[in-house]
Amino acid sequence: MNGASHLMDFLDEPFPDVGTYEDFHTIDWLREKSRDTDRHRKITSKSKESIWELIKSLLDAWSGWVVMLLIGLLSGTLAGVIDLAVDWMTDLKEGVCLSAFWYSHEQCCWTSNETTFDDRDKCPQWQKWAELMTGHSEGAGAYVLNYLMYVMWALLFSFLAVSLVRVFAPYACGSGIPEIKTILSGFIIRGYLGKWTLLIKTVTLVLAVSSGLSLGKEGPLVHVACCCGNLFCSLFSKYSKNEGKRREVLSAAAAAGVSVAFGAPIGGVLFSLEEVSYYFPLKTLWRSFFAALVAAFTLRSINPFGNSRLVLFYVEYHTPWYMAELVPFILLGVFGGLWGALFIRANISWCRRRKTTVLGRYPTLEVIVVAGLTALLAFPNPYTRRSTSELISELFNDCGALESSQLCDYINSPNMSRPVDDIPDRPAGPGVRIALLQLALALVFKVVITIFTFGMKIPSGLFIPSMAVGAIAGRIVGIGVEQMAYHHHDWIIIKNWCRPGADCVTPGLYAMVGAAACLGGVTRMTVSLVVIMFELTGGLEYIVPLMAAAVTSKWVADAFGKEGIYESHIQLNGYPYLDVRDEFTHRTLAADVMRPRRSEPPLAVLTQDATAVEDVEALIKETDYNGFPVVVSRQSERLIGFVQRRDLTLAVKTARQKQDGVVSSSVVYFTEDPPQLPADSPQPLKLRRILNLSPFTVTDHTPMETVVDIFRKLGLRQCLVTRSGRLLGIITKKDVLRHMAQMMNQDPESIMFN
Amino acid sequence: MNGASHLMDFLDEPFPDVGTYEDFHTIDWLREKSRDTDRHRKITSKSKESIWELIKSLLDAWSGWVVMLLIGLLSGTLAGVIDLAVDWMTDLKEGVCLSAFWYSHEQCCWTSNETTFDDRDKCPQWQKWAELMTGHSEGAGAYVLNYLMYVMWALLFSFLAVSLVRVFAPYACGSGIPEIKTILSGFIIRGYLGKWTLLIKTVTLVLAVSSGLSLGKEGPLVHVACCCGNLFCSLFSKYSKNEGKRREVLSAAAAAGVSVAFGAPIGGVLFSLEEVSYYFPLKTLWRSFFAALVAAFTLRSINPFGNSRLVLFYVEYHTPWYMAELVPFILLGVFGGLWGALFIRANISWCRRRKTTVLGRYPTLEVIVVAGLTALLAFPNPYTRRSTSELISELFNDCGALESSQLCDYINSPNMSRPVDDIPDRPAGPGVRIALLQLALALVFKVVITIFTFGMKIPSGLFIPSMAVGAIAGRIVGIGVEQMAYHHHDWIIIKNWCRPGADCVTPGLYAMVGAAACLGGVTRMTVSLVVIMFELTGGLEYIVPLMAAAVTSKWVADAFGKEGIYESHIQLNGYPYLDVRDEFTHRTLAADVMRPRRSEPPLAVLTQDATAVEDVEALIKETDYNGFPVVVSRQSERLIGFVQRRDLTLAVKTARQKQDGVVSSSVVYFTEDPPQLPADSPQPLKLRRILNLSPFTVTDHTPMETVVDIFRKLGLRQCLVTRSGRLLGIITKKDVLRHMAQMMNQDPESIMFN
Repeated sequence: MNGASHLMDFLDEPFPDVGTYEDFHTIDWLREKSRDTDRHRKITSKSKESIWELIKSLLDAWSGWVVMLLIGLLSGTLAGVIDLAVDWMTDLKEGVCLSAFWYSHEQCCWTSNETTFDDRDKCPQWQKWAELMTGHSEGAGAYVLNYLMYVMWALLFSFLAVSLVRVFAPYACGSGIPEIKTILSGFIIRGYLGKWTLLIKTVTLVLAVSSGLSLGKEGPLVHVACCCGNLFCSLFSKYSKNEGKRREVLSAAAAAGVSVAFGAPIGGVLFSLEEVSYYFPLKTLWRSFFAALVAAFTLRSINPFGNSRLVLFYVEYHTPWYMAELVPFILLGVFGGLWGALFIRANISWCRRRKTTVLGRYPTLEVIVVAGLTALLAFPNPYTRRSTSELISELFNDCGALESSQLCDYINSPNMSRPVDDIPDRPAGPGVRIALLQLALALVFKVVITIFTFGMKIPSGLFIPSMAVGAIAGRIVGIGVEQMAYHHHDWIIIKNWCRPGADCVTPGLYAMVGAAACLGGVTRMTVSLVVIMFELTGGLEYIVPLMAAAVTSKWVADAFGKEGIYESHIQLNGYPYLDVRDEFTHRTLAADVMRPRRSEPPLAVLTQDATAVEDVEALIKETDYNGFPVVVSRQSERLIGFVQRRDLTLAVKTARQKQDGVVSSSVVYFTEDPPQLPADSPQPLKLRRILNLSPFTVTDHTPMETVVDIFRKLGLRQCLVTRSGRLLGIITKKDVLRHMAQMMNQDPESIMFN
Repeated sequence: MNGASHLMDFLDEPFPDVGTYEDFHTIDWLREKSRDTDRHRKITSKSKESIWELIKSLLDAWSGWVVMLLIGLLSGTLAGVIDLAVDWMTDLKEGVCLSAFWYSHEQCCWTSNETTFDDRDKCPQWQKWAELMTGHSEGAGAYVLNYLMYVMWALLFSFLAVSLVRVFAPYACGSGIPEIKTILSGFIIRGYLGKWTLLIKTVTLVLAVSSGLSLGKEGPLVHVACCCGNLFCSLFSKYSKNEGKRREVLSAAAAAGVSVAFGAPIGGVLFSLEEVSYYFPLKTLWRSFFAALVAAFTLRSINPFGNSRLVLFYVEYHTPWYMAELVPFILLGVFGGLWGALFIRANISWCRRRKTTVLGRYPTLEVIVVAGLTALLAFPNPYTRRSTSELISELFNDCGALESSQLCDYINSPNMSRPVDDIPDRPAGPGVRIALLQLALALVFKVVITIFTFGMKIPSGLFIPSMAVGAIAGRIVGIGVEQMAYHHHDWIIIKNWCRPGADCVTPGLYAMVGAAACLGGVTRMTVSLVVIMFELTGGLEYIVPLMAAAVTSKWVADAFGKEGIYESHIQLNGYPYLDVRDEFTHRTLAADVMRPRRSEPPLAVLTQDATAVEDVEALIKETDYNGFPVVVSRQSERLIGFVQRRDLTLAVKTARQKQDGVVSSSVVYFTEDPPQLPADSPQPLKLRRILNLSPFTVTDHTPMETVVDIFRKLGLRQCLVTRSGRLLGIITKKDVLRHMAQMMNQDPESIMFN
């Protein structure tokens, strides 16, 4: 653990790569922490020397806050730009603004300001494609032309998106959250959070969302924010050179990402804490909150939705809910849980099929086919034709008196003279019936198409499609309950809470509860889900329905499998992720897990004073272990330390090149003072400085649950196993993960990295 | 770690106390966790046997939620009852309701409903003492009589409070948060969360707050909620028999306590996470949230404030803030930080004086003297006469058009015809000037008296007095800024953001910012503080000022000393609390900290097969260590395990009593199979079952920062130190804490418990 620090003391600039990690390897949290403390100690002691050093040390102390500020500013800006671009390009599929082609439908109609509120959808400046090309806006021909243009744009956007991803940044695909979870848990994937990924992901995200595919921008925004975080890390050596500190920044960046995705800073911090982060010290909590707030305020000052709200679907309800309504809310929770479980199973088996069969070889074709199918099926239905966030926004909203939506086509009683906020329950008109049918079709469509969409080679988030499924189901249930309450005032169960002429049921609330339930079922978020929804409604009032649905949904979904969609994708990809939430309850001991097994050759060890340089080189060549224990002698097997393969290779190589007299027969010494050697023996090689003198050990009798706990909490890469002071074997993170997979009747070979 | 589990297997009911802890001792988190896993495993395997066992296992799985529900219900109810009682008894100091003596002033005037809103303070049913006794409500005589009655009631209440605490439950005094932090970090203080403490703390809290002392009920409410949590733990063996699981429940209970104290469920959860909890798994987060919500809704259904709000000082502001206002906000932050630092120093040195001098011997007298002084000085000033929460509520509130308070005595322009919400800045009238003077006096009074009040032998919270200090300062600053902006419209800095006739400055917001700053300075809360305040205002709008003040206040206060008031009191009491936030950055190694030191006698160890029962008994008698390492032999010093003193004592005692043939010369075996002994040798005593075969070890070269990290994250009691497989020494939690104290130039002897 203090290998790196010792090294720094003895040599000025010894091996530039010492203490770094290879790609697709796990970091050692304790070592990173130790290195940061060394750095800090050095700066502190230097700061007493001169004013300049003091200023430098203050700057260093402040750099964390600066990084947070920059992350907040950039991710807020990017989110705003993405929102505006998506808005414009989604509308481009329908038509174009004559006064300025870069205006979206809504902006176009705002600027041509003659129209009143009611018919703002019909403004002369905005022309659908058919109207623009043929001059006719009505009729079958115009419909077909608009249909064609819609599909064409969708194909174009999706083709562009998948091509850009494939050519420039393959890591830009997917939601990114599974990988970010893995990275935050201490894994290295170089380039995953790089500048190219940031750029390409931002662009292709816009294209993918605009193409009308059943995907959202919320998950990828977390990835984008983390890329920003990584980008700004490189400005400060404190973060760029320490993988542990870097991950603190990334945790905060994830919070900023969710903050701008949902306009929920507190929810974002809790999401980062609950869902993605691994090591989350309190300092990070505070900084995450700062980054999330800056991001939210940046986004608000860009004001992409023109309503000074952070999200499209901010809502305010006016009527309370009643105890009896908990029954439909819980039913929605059950639905959400079932949908979550079904979705995860279906999506994972489809992704596995893609990975293993010929299907995976044509990702571009796959995206184009799915996009084409989506566009073809989506256009005829007004609820799927528009963007999914708009759909959710409409479903969440309560029907006001001025609402022109088909969903609000209720039959008004003639003597309505109440204030706008308090409209009593009314019977549904024909528009509502049509809307219900269309919504039902939209539900089936979304459920099926999302399964095939998530996991394709384009940026794709899952929050919005899940919420859409839940919101549709919720709204249908809500209208059903409302009509039941209206038509059956005399039923005992209804009589108690709903007088005739009162506004009892808020279908929009049902939509929101349904959305929470489905999102919960898919992701298994709990507190952060409820807090995000709470920040959308802004009232404690509705927390209980949301919570009831979230709890039910989680329980129902958990009954079919403990993993959420992100964990499932981590497993699918074989990343070495040690979930904090998995409880290991088996009775195995460290001795059952450690290598070497009984049938295997003995552990590859080095002795402290009896190994020649050529033996070391042979060991490095013949094995691919990440490190070697060093013992007093092969007989006593008493452990004195652990040396990393990477450090050992570098040290031997450097010594061979630069240190005179080091030959193949030179003896490698890990002891403090090599003995006096005969004059004719070759120059010894002293390597104590790269030896970690405090390797982590457990006894062979240690229960595996304790070992798992230690790996999790201390973020170890490996741990040595001893019995009464003798070295018996080694347990690596991969061994732990494979053992856990085996215990859960999964394929241990699915864990691929170390 | 698996000693306990082994024991369970071999003997049915061997030593009833095995695996429990003595009072004022530290628990072993790993062992507790291991025991819970064993329990869980047993239940799971049994649940497959019969339907009845399956139901039992389901009940067991649900018990966590049941406990949370009960905690929420009880702590919400208690908070409501306390609020109502405090309300009534505070008013009792002034007068009594003729129609029903159990009505508070407000309730009394509500029920006598003839009065209009404006003069609701003057209702015939409510009589001040002077009026009741002499019939006169005006004049110097009446004033003096009222004054006397006020002081008399204060003395009576405080005398009752201190007597009840001293006679029935000494643990009921103070805020309880330092002790709860220590308990949650794994310390045992029996009775601290007991039934008596719950009862007495609830009653005396009402008395103490009603007596008018400068203290609040918020901190003690956390203690009360934790007592509820402990009470309900005893219903389920899952929690009552496992100190680790019990602490999960207590963490959630703390969240419920803050939730009802401030009406802020999310803030409560974050408070528990940030401030009091030590081990906070994600499962606990979700359950805490549930408990906090149930508590909040229970309190709301009791509705103690008659406004369907959870707290007296819920506010809604109508005007935004401007960038330039950040300057006074940050100044308030500086004030808060200074006040926090000053308060902590002064209070700690006063408490230390109380502890070490004759003063501590007369706690009852002290309370009565302080209460008398407080009442004497408080009565003449209307801002200190009323209860502190009412004061804060008034300071937070913006001046509406209907406001009759002196603070809102602005000079209205004659042509005022605006809506109520949007009153422009106006010049201050004479009432405001008088109010400012009185507020300044109140500020000085509160600052001084709070230092002497916190730490007396009565329940006393610190949140309300701190917030009051900040709110007074903030309101004064706010009015100052408002008047400056009104009178100097032409100043460049003001011209930019404040047109004449506009409502630019909200003095109530300044009060809130000041309150946050002072609370932050004293407690060093960060995220939870901002979230609690956010939940009080209910708008993202005002988070930036609050955050700016909180950050400034923390930085300023930290410059004078890192510890908040709770940590300082923990230190004062010498509790073994290993703060998660302290960064250990010194270069010491495990070898520097371990016992025995070089000059000391060697470590007391047992050998695995060569110690006689009498030697063991002698060892137990002569030393007071909490446990003994077991080695292969004294020569090789190779460690095989660790045995707890308590278990060893019990095992030897039980064997002596119940096992035939065990005599003083019997050999104690810790090996798996004792060798075949000659026929005439005494019966051996096999103790492998109480041996912990997986003691935690580190090498002597391990940096102390890593050791501290391990102790913190794994919750160890002790850790053995080895070098190349040989046992060298032991490090206990106490050693770690003493070493940390020494490194920070504090008295290591102040850490008193192990």
